[in-house]
Amino acid sequence: MKGAVLYGPRDVRFVEREDPRIIEPTDAILRISATCVCGSDLWPYRGIDAPRQPIPMGHEYCGVVEEIGSEVRNVRPGQFVVGSFFASDNTCPICRAGYQSRCVDARIMGAEGAQAPFLRVPLADGTLVPTPELPPDDLLPSLLATSDVLGTGWFAADAAAVAPGKTVAVVGDGAVGLLGVLSAKQMGAERIILMSRHEDRQKLGREFGATDIVTERGDEGVARIKDMTDGLGAHSVIEAVGTQQSMMQAIRSTRPGGHVGYVGVSHGVSLPGEELFFAEVHLMGGPAPVRRYLPELIGMVLDGKINPGKVFDQTVPLEQVAEGYRAMDERRAIKTLLTV
Amino acid sequence: MKGAVLYGPRDVRFVEREDPRIIEPTDAILRISATCVCGSDLWPYRGIDAPRQPIPMGHEYCGVVEEIGSEVRNVRPGQFVVGSFFASDNTCPICRAGYQSRCVDARIMGAEGAQAPFLRVPLADGTLVPTPELPPDDLLPSLLATSDVLGTGWFAADAAAVAPGKTVAVVGDGAVGLLGVLSAKQMGAERIILMSRHEDRQKLGREFGATDIVTERGDEGVARIKDMTDGLGAHSVIEAVGTQQSMMQAIRSTRPGGHVGYVGVSHGVSLPGEELFFAEVHLMGGPAPVRRYLPELIGMVLDGKINPGKVFDQTVPLEQVAEGYRAMDERRAIKTLLTV
Repeated sequence: MKGAVLYGPRDVRFVEREDPRIIEPTDAILRISATCVCGSDLWPYRGIDAPRQPIPMGHEYCGVVEEIGSEVRNVRPGQFVVGSFFASDNTCPICRAGYQSRCVDARIMGAEGAQAPFLRVPLADGTLVPTPELPPDDLLPSLLATSDVLGTGWFAADAAAVAPGKTVAVVGDGAVGLLGVLSAKQMGAERIILMSRHEDRQKLGREFGATDIVTERGDEGVARIKDMTDGLGAHSVIEAVGTQQSMMQAIRSTRPGGHVGYVGVSHGVSLPGEELFFAEVHLMGGPAPVRRYLPELIGMVLDGKINPGKVFDQTVPLEQVAEGYRAMDERRAIKTLLTV
Repeated sequence: MKGAVLYGPRDVRFVEREDPRIIEPTDAILRISATCVCGSDLWPYRGIDAPRQPIPMGHEYCGVVEEIGSEVRNVRPGQFVVGSFFASDNTCPICRAGYQSRCVDARIMGAEGAQAPFLRVPLADGTLVPTPELPPDDLLPSLLATSDVLGTGWFAADAAAVAPGKTVAVVGDGAVGLLGVLSAKQMGAERIILMSRHEDRQKLGREFGATDIVTERGDEGVARIKDMTDGLGAHSVIEAVGTQQSMMQAIRSTRPGGHVGYVGVSHGVSLPGEELFFAEVHLMGGPAPVRRYLPELIGMVLDGKINPGKVFDQTVPLEQVAEGYRAMDERRAIKTLLTV
């Protein structure tokens, strides 16, 4: 088969790769229905934490089970399934507590390369969530979104303790931030302030439930959030960027006793202990345990309650994957869906 | 009156100070029944964040109301009261959410200097909690302890989400860490691991409820905690030191999805973003909102359910305050009570 491989900075190629096959008896092989480019794919694409050798790319996926290993019990060939970007056994104490991304046997799906027609999924029983029947094609973008970008935005909102009546601020207007807005709306937030400078993203943010837009950044952005909240700061802040500036903006926008949920993959961040101590905010974040939320999120998509697939504002065939990366890198696209 | 004043590194003197008087109509003046030296007093005593001019010392106190301002309604002269090291109005949105140490009008009590026979308490209605009647003298140490050291240990355990069935690790065997052990025990923790190298502190820790002692520190200490918890780490970790090593030890001793409650006043700490991201632990800490817990803690002391005053292993008259600082600095005493 042919799939996406990163050769070096800004050099993604659609090239021949070995067909995935069952290696462990707990594996499944999926025929991918749709996959996409993640904001986190742009870090190595831009040469940050770049690989030393060509690596397969992609970790967001949904598709139909093609083959299962001898020990797989919970899914069967022909079923449509969604999985997270971490494979997990879903039975260890960490999984049972809801932190499947840190499963004692977690496997990062990026290593398998989901931007391809077929994908090996380890720990299939713990990882994959099947739908009751094959979904209609028009739901594919939203089902694909549950795999990471929605699951991550949802976790951020959950980690930020979003609840009815609360004021939520969202730092980052990428796909995760925008779906953080959608998540906060679903969780009953009263006021959702999206920090964004891009008109197209502001528009989608409002559609997802943002009540206010703040265009200022850094200290000015913090001051605006304070102004809007009687000088106190937001109850809940979602951080969806991962830089020093965005983390400090999130922490400083949160009222004492409030919660920061951070999901932007941290790059070069260092949190000053004294400021954090006197900020007195709850911090929780990391790679989202999407598996915890998948059944609920898939259910909401199938019921037509949410339409997170709207974050995909570009769709290209998988063979044009390089254009997908370019469009996101150049901010021409919020998020690119790859059809297979 | 005469009270404790810090003149420079390791130079605390018992000298003449102005008698406190009502300045604002919301003030109260207390006749101090007992006060003490705090671990955090040792930072400036040792010359770290040292003041540029002589400053009155002390922020832990209990005593009898001597005089009240014209707007004080909740306490009256003759009542025995305890307050926290932050005065707070207890009515603002931050106070109502339980974070009185970050009250919008918070006043740090250290500025008033509680190591003295009399003390001005601002915002008396919000700050002071009276007992139903004058307590017997033998309860004074434990009532004094609720003012900060127990309240802080209790907050740390609460911030670390201690609950029945959980395994708790405590980093720091000072008075706060030891009362973190007591707090975790009261909250129903199944296993309480105290990290301590000092035999006298280990003994008191066991008396307060520690089930295990770990003498290793740093990476070795973390490895021991992992060994004792099936490789996972503790559910809840209390950090009661405030250094880089102790914070990292706490974070690394916590299982993914677990909670760190940190109350050691942060000095020179810098948390690496990437490690924190992948650690995926809840962080909450800062100056303890002791006021939130005071009614409950005072009640437990009066009912004889807890005896936190045992952390005072040295008692000296206030005029010998310099010896109290020396004893704690030299680790001859865990905590020094000053009689007035």
